[in-house]
Amino acid sequence: MQPSVSTLNLDAVKERVNRALARYCNERYGAASQVGHGYAVLWKSLSTLLQAGGKRLRPYMLLSAYQAYAEDPAIERVLPAALSQELVHLAMRVHDDIIDRDTIRYGIKNITGQYLDYYSANSESDTEVRHLAESSAILAGDILLSDSYRLLAKSDIGEMQLAKALLLMSRSVFEVVGGELLDTESALIDDPLVTAHTIARYKTASYSFIGPLVIGATLAGAPKKELETLQHFAESLGVAYQLRDDLLGVFGNEDVTGKSTSTDIVEGKRTHLIEQFELLATPEQATTFMVAFHNPKASHAQIATARDLLIESGAKAAVEAEIEKLTGRVQNALEALTISEESRRTFEELVQICLVREL
Amino acid sequence: MQPSVSTLNLDAVKERVNRALARYCNERYGAASQVGHGYAVLWKSLSTLLQAGGKRLRPYMLLSAYQAYAEDPAIERVLPAALSQELVHLAMRVHDDIIDRDTIRYGIKNITGQYLDYYSANSESDTEVRHLAESSAILAGDILLSDSYRLLAKSDIGEMQLAKALLLMSRSVFEVVGGELLDTESALIDDPLVTAHTIARYKTASYSFIGPLVIGATLAGAPKKELETLQHFAESLGVAYQLRDDLLGVFGNEDVTGKSTSTDIVEGKRTHLIEQFELLATPEQATTFMVAFHNPKASHAQIATARDLLIESGAKAAVEAEIEKLTGRVQNALEALTISEESRRTFEELVQICLVREL
Repeated sequence: MQPSVSTLNLDAVKERVNRALARYCNERYGAASQVGHGYAVLWKSLSTLLQAGGKRLRPYMLLSAYQAYAEDPAIERVLPAALSQELVHLAMRVHDDIIDRDTIRYGIKNITGQYLDYYSANSESDTEVRHLAESSAILAGDILLSDSYRLLAKSDIGEMQLAKALLLMSRSVFEVVGGELLDTESALIDDPLVTAHTIARYKTASYSFIGPLVIGATLAGAPKKELETLQHFAESLGVAYQLRDDLLGVFGNEDVTGKSTSTDIVEGKRTHLIEQFELLATPEQATTFMVAFHNPKASHAQIATARDLLIESGAKAAVEAEIEKLTGRVQNALEALTISEESRRTFEELVQICLVREL
Repeated sequence: MQPSVSTLNLDAVKERVNRALARYCNERYGAASQVGHGYAVLWKSLSTLLQAGGKRLRPYMLLSAYQAYAEDPAIERVLPAALSQELVHLAMRVHDDIIDRDTIRYGIKNITGQYLDYYSANSESDTEVRHLAESSAILAGDILLSDSYRLLAKSDIGEMQLAKALLLMSRSVFEVVGGELLDTESALIDDPLVTAHTIARYKTASYSFIGPLVIGATLAGAPKKELETLQHFAESLGVAYQLRDDLLGVFGNEDVTGKSTSTDIVEGKRTHLIEQFELLATPEQATTFMVAFHNPKASHAQIATARDLLIESGAKAAVEAEIEKLTGRVQNALEALTISEESRRTFEELVQICLVREL
């Protein structure tokens, strides 16, 4: 059950996935052209966005988990399932961007952004153009979501595995939709049970870690006990990744992450870090912090002070301790997996990528 | 291959589907509660809407086609697949309502409508409440679309049938998304190739006729030739249904259809009837017609004149001739099917429901 295969390489997977995605988009562009010119335009937009972005970590995870348990280590037959993880991801991002009113993704115009340009040529009304552009983005997300199931069905695997994989995929989507809803509503509704940890579990870990890893192992016919351990591994890894990502959003190296370390503070993003600050800060610290927090007009100095307070209050250390605890669970789960040394190294590499490197 | 089974009864199917949908919503409500209270609220809204509406024609079609080819006529094992047709339908309607800015569906508040009430209690800003309500409706459509695949996977059928059914389902969604996009864009972009006939084929026939019928027969393992004939049957039936529905939208009995016969005219809906009028009308008829067409302030008398012009120009007769032609194709396909007399009667009943009764 544990063939000696070469460790999967993220760069090689990325190249292969990108080639396959390009082929896939081309095929769908052709099919869309049969329906009508406007539909081909939508697929052109989707193709641009799909190929612009992403580290392809989800396909990499699915393929790694598949290889860890498959008798035949060739990944060709489950490549469509690996691609499907990118599609479901982009589907959620396209709809998320409408909800967040964003028009940029991966440094280029997203679906709404591209359609704002396209429709502007045909209408004077900004409101109408915006509404139609967002309408097209709704439909774009729908076809990506639907096609992610199509790709899963195109994988060359047995009946039981396909049905199980579909149910796992639908569980991922069920959870991410719930997480997204709770996150969106938190702007209006104060539910003390909805913590940043809950959001990280459902909005991030669900379909970005648990889905790819458990689906990959399921497609290979991994035993139930292994799937359960892998689920724990993925859940802790996903939540730890999100908590760390939020830390980097405030304390990261902007040159490496490419993200401003002020945005989360001035936009008032309610991360686990902020929740810890609220628990630990003195009333004076809390008052000073609020000068910059959720204040788009805060000065650099005020933001720097807020950042220092997150350290002085012990909030940063508390989040680091939580990440440490989750990392311990990730390591324990990894040790409990019955996989080859090559696969173990691949999974260790994955942990490094998610929890150590600054992405 | 042709067991003697009692003809499926639409009312009995409707009752069974409604019970199964209620059970399903209850189960999902429970699972959503595990994620968070807000997600349970969404499922409550979905449940209300799902149970408020519909003639359950799509499940009826899927089950009829399944029974026509299944060795074992018991429908229990494919009931989830029948429900999935209602879910994919509601998913598209929920997103369609956002695009059309509607807040009512099946005579009750739709997802956006229900969330406008819910969120209004928590915010003073109408714009913000509207945006968040539509955001929740986007997510509601997403989980319905995803769950429609989940239900398909839960049907108790063989591997080959499941994979084939999934691909057919994804083809339906691919087509309806394209049809919806072309229809929406027609407000801005004038593409002479995008006719009302094209829209009817992709937006209506695709997932409301072809999907349920061909998926049902596929789940029963029907031979390829039968599937092809059934596809022709479904395509012609679906387009004819839509053309007739548009006729009823102008010439129907309001007491029976429950729809105003003025709305389509004053909203300027570009149906096959209007396309025929443009081809056939004299310049004088066209000028008089435009007084009422696409004019929300048109008087009853002006609308009545426009309606008369649709008859005098020969447009109504042209649409009726087109429906007649399509009905001929429907009958030819039906005759070519190799099915039991009971199944033939069920399909004939279906044709009656779609093309003769005023629904």
